[in-house]
Amino acid sequence: MVAMSPYVVQPIGHVESPLVDLAAAPKQGYEGSPLAWLVFHSEVSEAARDINVGDELIVLTWLDRADRDVQVVHPRGEPANPMRGVFSTRSPDRPNPVGVHRVEVVAMDGLRVQVRDLEALDGTPIVDVKSVLAYVE
Amino acid sequence: MVAMSPYVVQPIGHVESPLVDLAAAPKQGYEGSPLAWLVFHSEVSEAARDINVGDELIVLTWLDRADRDVQVVHPRGEPANPMRGVFSTRSPDRPNPVGVHRVEVVAMDGLRVQVRDLEALDGTPIVDVKSVLAYVE
Repeated sequence: MVAMSPYVVQPIGHVESPLVDLAAAPKQGYEGSPLAWLVFHSEVSEAARDINVGDELIVLTWLDRADRDVQVVHPRGEPANPMRGVFSTRSPDRPNPVGVHRVEVVAMDGLRVQVRDLEALDGTPIVDVKSVLAYVE
Repeated sequence: MVAMSPYVVQPIGHVESPLVDLAAAPKQGYEGSPLAWLVFHSEVSEAARDINVGDELIVLTWLDRADRDVQVVHPRGEPANPMRGVFSTRSPDRPNPVGVHRVEVVAMDGLRVQVRDLEALDGTPIVDVKSVLAYVE
């Protein structure tokens, strides 16, 4: 990479999920993910204080089992799909493996937030959470 | 933060935009952003090789002018809006200031990709680019 300062992600929590097997996990959240928990660190409790059941959120994760040296892939891991640059795919393997997930909150328990449609593996670090809609909408 | 390994983002490029003033920039891309360029580093040329005019992409940026110590904000910077945890907003100020932008490619020039609806400031580092739709759709 060129001379540009690196930026350090400090995880704000992690995912708890029955998904532990990379090969068996769904490729996208809407393809049958089990319910999962976002577990926030106490240091970010103020940032998480207004999350409520029913909220639609964007969750960013650090896909810590991804290969950062991969630039082209067979999409969805299917050898029959022609090789494609990863910036035109949703492959987890990419230079900065940040996952983008749209989820819905189904339950709350303090700093634990249960969500549907999260395909991340158990233990995946959470980078950020945002509202889907701007506040004023 | 608790003892969890930090993760280092290596920018894959940067934004070129007429937007240089944080205060004057639109809050969201659909609120009147001018055309902007994604300028990729040559090191990721293979990852970017399949981007084409007309593509709808998710662009992740590192909002390098954000305040990472902020956990609650007046949404949209309006003092009349009640304070809210940043994970329930789209504020750029947050522990890991990664911006999520949905854009459309309108022109290409080698490693320079012109897009609409990108509200990032000039010089903002690019973290990742993904297709909006899964490849098979």
